[in-house]
Amino acid sequence: MTDAEDAGTAEVVFRSDVTVELVKCSAEDSDVLFAARVSTKGEQSLEDVHADPSRSTGLINYLLRDRHGSPFEHSTLTYYVQAPIFVFRELMRHRVASYNEESGRYRELRPVFYVPGEDRRLVQEGKPGAYRFVEGSPGQHKTVTQATRRACLEAYAAYREMLEAGVAREVARGVLPVCTYSSMYATMNARALMNFLSLRTRRDNAQFASYPQREIEMVAERMEEEWARVMPLTHAAFDANGRVAP
Amino acid sequence: MTDAEDAGTAEVVFRSDVTVELVKCSAEDSDVLFAARVSTKGEQSLEDVHADPSRSTGLINYLLRDRHGSPFEHSTLTYYVQAPIFVFRELMRHRVASYNEESGRYRELRPVFYVPGEDRRLVQEGKPGAYRFVEGSPGQHKTVTQATRRACLEAYAAYREMLEAGVAREVARGVLPVCTYSSMYATMNARALMNFLSLRTRRDNAQFASYPQREIEMVAERMEEEWARVMPLTHAAFDANGRVAP
Amino acid sequence: MTDAEDAGTAEVVFRSDVTVELVKCSAEDSDVLFAARVSTKGEQSLEDVHADPSRSTGLINYLLRDRHGSPFEHSTLTYYVQAPIFVFRELMRHRVASYNEESGRYRELRPVFYVPGEDRRLVQEGKPGAYRFVEGSPGQHKTVTQATRRACLEAYAAYREMLEAGVAREVARGVLPVCTYSSMYATMNARALMNFLSLRTRRDNAQFASYPQREIEMVAERMEEEWARVMPLTHAAFDANGRVAP
Amino acid sequence: MTDAEDAGTAEVVFRSDVTVELVKCSAEDSDVLFAARVSTKGEQSLEDVHADPSRSTGLINYLLRDRHGSPFEHSTLTYYVQAPIFVFRELMRHRVASYNEESGRYRELRPVFYVPGEDRRLVQEGKPGAYRFVEGSPGQHKTVTQATRRACLEAYAAYREMLEAGVAREVARGVLPVCTYSSMYATMNARALMNFLSLRTRRDNAQFASYPQREIEMVAERMEEEWARVMPLTHAAFDANGRVAP
Repeated sequence: MTDAEDAGTAEVVFRSDVTVELVKCSAEDSDVLFAARVSTKGEQSLEDVHADPSRSTGLINYLLRDRHGSPFEHSTLTYYVQAPIFVFRELMRHRVASYNEESGRYRELRPVFYVPGEDRRLVQEGKPGAYRFVEGSPGQHKTVTQATRRACLEAYAAYREMLEAGVAREVARGVLPVCTYSSMYATMNARALMNFLSLRTRRDNAQFASYPQREIEMVAERMEEEWARVMPLTHAAFDANGRVAP
Repeated sequence: MTDAEDAGTAEVVFRSDVTVELVKCSAEDSDVLFAARVSTKGEQSLEDVHADPSRSTGLINYLLRDRHGSPFEHSTLTYYVQAPIFVFRELMRHRVASYNEESGRYRELRPVFYVPGEDRRLVQEGKPGAYRFVEGSPGQHKTVTQATRRACLEAYAAYREMLEAGVAREVARGVLPVCTYSSMYATMNARALMNFLSLRTRRDNAQFASYPQREIEMVAERMEEEWARVMPLTHAAFDANGRVAP
Repeated sequence: MTDAEDAGTAEVVFRSDVTVELVKCSAEDSDVLFAARVSTKGEQSLEDVHADPSRSTGLINYLLRDRHGSPFEHSTLTYYVQAPIFVFRELMRHRVASYNEESGRYRELRPVFYVPGEDRRLVQEGKPGAYRFVEGSPGQHKTVTQATRRACLEAYAAYREMLEAGVAREVARGVLPVCTYSSMYATMNARALMNFLSLRTRRDNAQFASYPQREIEMVAERMEEEWARVMPLTHAAFDANGRVAP
Repeated sequence: MTDAEDAGTAEVVFRSDVTVELVKCSAEDSDVLFAARVSTKGEQSLEDVHADPSRSTGLINYLLRDRHGSPFEHSTLTYYVQAPIFVFRELMRHRVASYNEESGRYRELRPVFYVPGEDRRLVQEGKPGAYRFVEGSPGQHKTVTQATRRACLEAYAAYREMLEAGVAREVARGVLPVCTYSSMYATMNARALMNFLSLRTRRDNAQFASYPQREIEMVAERMEEEWARVMPLTHAAFDANGRVAP
């Protein structure tokens, strides 16, 4: 999915994918159980965690259905993400999470740019809030690829020119496009993650419609896969209950 | 430190201490390092974590001194706490944490009450915002112990009387005093914990003065001990830099 | 609804109601409009606010239905609330708001206590998460009133006894019951308020069931009345769309 | 400070400044007073607000010095901001505020780009966390201006080319540089604003050193001016106490 092109000293890379890795995680279905049961069991809630699997499933399902959100907060997942800046712009609007990102002030940014892949639907129909996307023609794909590559190469050349003239990184980076890749760590609990997923994935079984941009949905889908692995009961209940964050 | 007294069917307990246990934890000094280094190293920050211990100490120290707080958020600590309701009232004012508490609506509350211990300073001098506490006389201690015990026993008798008459728990509990013990799980990251500690402990080396009530300080001290064990470099830097949350 | 009783030096008051006043407010339906329209109109969104009332109604309705929450945050309401401590305990669990409350450390608390009124349903049926409340018998009402009054008078006498012995307010207040009235200012934006209302009122037209304790629902109902007056379009859309916070 | 250039159908604009307007505001020094005094005065705190100006100054000063932050939250300021995307990227890292921004998905972005002005220091010295900036040479200024203009014109041409080929705005905008202007509303309370100012302005009288990028400092300075006008006592106390957010 990546493709390199020589741009003088550095090798410019064009990618169409995102990287999402779960690098650190303290999140299990049982975290929900001890937190929920403290309300009725007090000090015994922790011993009780592994007591009865079938009742556990029922409890998690009930909490999600009736929107009791706080028991889902005693868990944490840290993702390492590589994605274009325009994706990070949307991601960081979710305020109940912790972020640390690569800095364009502290390091020279690498020439890695996003160019939509073959399967990216290019044409938008409908109106704000209810867009539908349809396939682009071969001609449109070609226009996007060529125009994007050309603009990115020009931008990167301008960036390098300024750096070589001794200009500060934070000034020079102004010309870099929002499709430049950045990288960060994002940490959140399961409740915040469900909120993110409910807004940034589009699913037919969702109780509330969402129309995320495809590129952030690619990040969300990968996050969801990783999360489903570590909290399978919670994930199943989230999906079964209309994908509404509790 | 506890002391039981028969109150009809249930055994009333008086305590002067708090319980704080670190029941779940994903927090190491290295969490701070990978998060901080992503700004300058991008994708290599994770491999770099264990590279150079002495530079790690320096980095953590620099972050705390100059108040770069976000790298301290990629960690999580879950405490189980038993303390009087008046302590929980203060604890829950800290909004950057997750709480689940025993419910007076969903379960019958147990008759466990706080009575100040021998070492609790009883007499307040000074003015709001800068109180000093001095020793109480033996007579004052006796007054506190007797008045507290008497009021708690009366309150609990009234609670039981209403329950036995078939009144809902959430109505009956109105009479229970704020020194009644409750229990909860509290989850927070290291940054939020430092903020809590800076406000709820009183230390001579603190850059900003705090005057916490002694009972919440007892909880804070126990939290700090547990945290110091799992993130020793961060704790040392926090203490060395005036105990200011970054 | 209040009733006083002489308790030596101070007059003990028993109340069954709550006080909620909107003391400060910068919240209009038009706040939602300029915030929402900046996404499509940029710099012209502010001029456009009063352009077309019927389209405004449609826009607010759309935002609530599809859960676009951020435009509802550019507003603020400050309430002054008097309610029992057990209500404040629940209220302050809502972390997206600002609170300042009367302090039991800095002032002597006044002897005002909550006793359930004639219309308070006293008997709980069902199970956790789905309680139903039914009328109490005259005998149950009598038990509640007498037991509550007796316990509060005893508690207050113990409080006063400790204060008169020179004991600090923060120590003495331990004996006061959770039905003691406190007072505070609570400030929040319309989005946070809708979240609060969705969880703390019980309505047949709500998409998600909530089972709040009646006393916090009394506070919520009064907050909702005040808010409906200042943001009538938003309130109507909230109610028409299942009372789900966006 | 702006300068236009014909780029086919649209007129490309280069600017070196930012726009910051306080468009909505419910923030006075007296908001701090009633909130702070409820702790000691309960229900009388509101009447008391205008009682004694000299004591008010003292109270605000004390709250800031000893970091009692919550009384500063019962206020709200809504700013309209036009600034480059790289500034908004930093601004939105401040999570205790509300944002609504112009959307590159819902509207065609206008060709307005940031180019550093004559007075922008271009050359960075020192190391991460403690950068110093010094004047650029005329040659460096010329390089920055020419490289930036050229790259922006190329990027905008590519953007327009894709739009004219029928490609969706959200795809085409990938090529636009982070120096493209965007616009938004940002709402926050005085406490959050002080936190923002403490981190995004560089002042000799600051207790904790900050090294903000100049462009976000330009936004911060304009926000501070507006705020100082509406809450003069609070602003003066903030500045006198080392510009530490309480």
